[in-house]
Amino acid sequence: MEDITGILVDLFVLFAAAKAAGELFTRMRQPPVVGEVLVGVLIGPHALGLVGSPDGSLISLFGGDREAAAEALDVVFDVIAELGVIILLFFVGLETRLGDLLDVGKRSALVGVLGVAFPFALGFALIWATDPTNSKDLEIEAAFVATAMVATSIGITARVLGDIGAIRTREARIILGAAVVDDILALLLLSVVSGLGGDDFDALEVGLTAVAAVAFVVFAALVGTRVIRQYSMHLERLQIRNSPFLVAIIIMLGLSALAGFIGLAAIIGAFLAGMMLAEAKERFNLEQQALPIYEFLVPFFFVIIGTKVDPGAFTDATILEIALGVTALAVLGKLIGGGIASAGLPVRSAAIIGTGMVPRGEVGLVVASVGSGIGAISADMFSVVVFMSVATTILAPPVLVWLHRGYPLEPLGEPAEPALPEL
Amino acid sequence: MEDITGILVDLFVLFAAAKAAGELFTRMRQPPVVGEVLVGVLIGPHALGLVGSPDGSLISLFGGDREAAAEALDVVFDVIAELGVIILLFFVGLETRLGDLLDVGKRSALVGVLGVAFPFALGFALIWATDPTNSKDLEIEAAFVATAMVATSIGITARVLGDIGAIRTREARIILGAAVVDDILALLLLSVVSGLGGDDFDALEVGLTAVAAVAFVVFAALVGTRVIRQYSMHLERLQIRNSPFLVAIIIMLGLSALAGFIGLAAIIGAFLAGMMLAEAKERFNLEQQALPIYEFLVPFFFVIIGTKVDPGAFTDATILEIALGVTALAVLGKLIGGGIASAGLPVRSAAIIGTGMVPRGEVGLVVASVGSGIGAISADMFSVVVFMSVATTILAPPVLVWLHRGYPLEPLGEPAEPALPEL
Repeated sequence: MEDITGILVDLFVLFAAAKAAGELFTRMRQPPVVGEVLVGVLIGPHALGLVGSPDGSLISLFGGDREAAAEALDVVFDVIAELGVIILLFFVGLETRLGDLLDVGKRSALVGVLGVAFPFALGFALIWATDPTNSKDLEIEAAFVATAMVATSIGITARVLGDIGAIRTREARIILGAAVVDDILALLLLSVVSGLGGDDFDALEVGLTAVAAVAFVVFAALVGTRVIRQYSMHLERLQIRNSPFLVAIIIMLGLSALAGFIGLAAIIGAFLAGMMLAEAKERFNLEQQALPIYEFLVPFFFVIIGTKVDPGAFTDATILEIALGVTALAVLGKLIGGGIASAGLPVRSAAIIGTGMVPRGEVGLVVASVGSGIGAISADMFSVVVFMSVATTILAPPVLVWLHRGYPLEPLGEPAEPALPEL
Repeated sequence: MEDITGILVDLFVLFAAAKAAGELFTRMRQPPVVGEVLVGVLIGPHALGLVGSPDGSLISLFGGDREAAAEALDVVFDVIAELGVIILLFFVGLETRLGDLLDVGKRSALVGVLGVAFPFALGFALIWATDPTNSKDLEIEAAFVATAMVATSIGITARVLGDIGAIRTREARIILGAAVVDDILALLLLSVVSGLGGDDFDALEVGLTAVAAVAFVVFAALVGTRVIRQYSMHLERLQIRNSPFLVAIIIMLGLSALAGFIGLAAIIGAFLAGMMLAEAKERFNLEQQALPIYEFLVPFFFVIIGTKVDPGAFTDATILEIALGVTALAVLGKLIGGGIASAGLPVRSAAIIGTGMVPRGEVGLVVASVGSGIGAISADMFSVVVFMSVATTILAPPVLVWLHRGYPLEPLGEPAEPALPEL
């Protein structure tokens, strides 16, 4: 063991700050995830510098090489954040039964597909046309930003709908179904884009990555789900305490590592692990047991994302303009996609559905962090995507509340999918 | 985010190996913790090398400096292991009410004190007299080895007593009470010794460290417990979900960081945080919520400890002799201490009490890792202490079972303290 007291102090500051900001934002009726990211920006090395600087004993561990020590500290933060986002996507997967996915209504599927297509096309076009950071590999950077603009944060929307008592309405059901389709499409896009991002463009590799991504997803979803369904009862025969939960953790870590190993994002593996286990979750109480780990580790992901944002980037007029442009197109893309897919419904319903798809929250942040990890997007573009994720997440809830005011909602009979824990 | 896929693969291998070994050892009716350490030795860089070697992308992150990348990987492992051991000691603290501690019978206190004094004296004398590794700072190294020989692993003993249905006997009660006293004394010793280990010997500093250690422990135990008792109900007023549990985590991380900051072992802070919260644990369901985090993170501590052991060290006859000698004195010290303190009880009861105090398990490993972290004990001595911890943990359970066979136990009325989760 090395002398890692300084790192422990950083972890304490990160966690305490995340939770304090979450509390503050909850009281302000804002999503806590927004507070976690913003407080990360505040305490990070680009602003107050309360965390993220190696202390003397860490530097001396690297023979006085300050830069290496800072890099090592970054790696530590990234591993903790990665564990957090793995748990997050595992949890999202647990909420996503393959059966529900196959049963999802046509309307939801259409909202999902169009709500992916429009933001992606608009975002890609904007970055490609303006090339704000003189990117070395413009197509890849544009594709990453566009992918980050794609996925709705189902947690935030579900929470707002729940708060205003609208979770059982037709609109809510369409939004929740669409968000699942949209998550899967975003993860598939991310697999392909991150497979491309690592190297130079190569048509064969594009094809192989796409095939690998699709094969992995299909295999895990279909074969994995069936294996779990057939054999999960045997888990109870193991001797170690709480074996089903521990095997679930092993599957989660294993598929995450495997996804990373074959060049996909690790979180795709985590999501698939969750989805495979979704049908066994009640039997083994998986969600209830995963929740404390979620609450311990997930905040680290968001606050650490925040520490990587350089607020100074927005003093550059071009970056600020691009950030505003990306945010505007991210909103517009969902409104257009949702609007077209809602043809035949009242205008207000279409507006509710479109607005419900607007918050990008954690999914945009996940895409940004993957892109930044493989060097596919610049620090400035990373900050732009974080800006967009935070801005859409702040904007949507009050608009949703306003659109629902005085609007007669049709409650449906069956209970909706349970909401995710607050993000 | 950096490309940390290699680290994820390592974490998966560590966790899966730990759990597989735990399962195997449970089936062999051995403590799973022993399996976790031994499998760590097996897969670690000194043996099979399945984990602990930086991959290409990590090395390239450090500009091709392989050594810096390996050091960074070590730091990552150490931080994960440290989080694990912090949770472990937090959990032990949750099981230790200050009231129970103050109420503990005279006999338990005597068993605890003598069971600390004899192993410490014998261990210190052995290392000091033989100086097997030509230590630069012999007194400190001897004190660390002696401290590692002090503390009983309450989890292992409690588990064995539970398994044979002897948890409510007088002997069990004495052992459990003594183990608490023994844990506290060991932690105090560790505070003092680790305060000394960092620098050259300085009488003033010895005094200050001892005072700081005692003041911190007393303040946290008395004032902290009272503050929690008085104000914990206000935690329910916080808006974020599950706020009492999250505040408990913040207190745990905060006191750990604070303990580290003032030169004590971080785990002492974690233990005190747990003890402060012991009276609020039922109200807020703290144990049940901490358990999944425990099961996720604690195995990393033991398997990572294993990876640091160089089995090659024991091919050196001197090291092997010292390892056997330290183990013999660790057993003898507890038998003598327990025997003297059990004066007036039947011989078999005294033997049961002494044997019940023998397993060192995780506490010896914790001391070894702290000593190694501040450079106070050499790699060889680290391996010696791990050997002693594992050997005492393997030896005691079958002897305890054998001593109980055919011995009429006197069951007591009230329920005993709940046993710790399996270690």
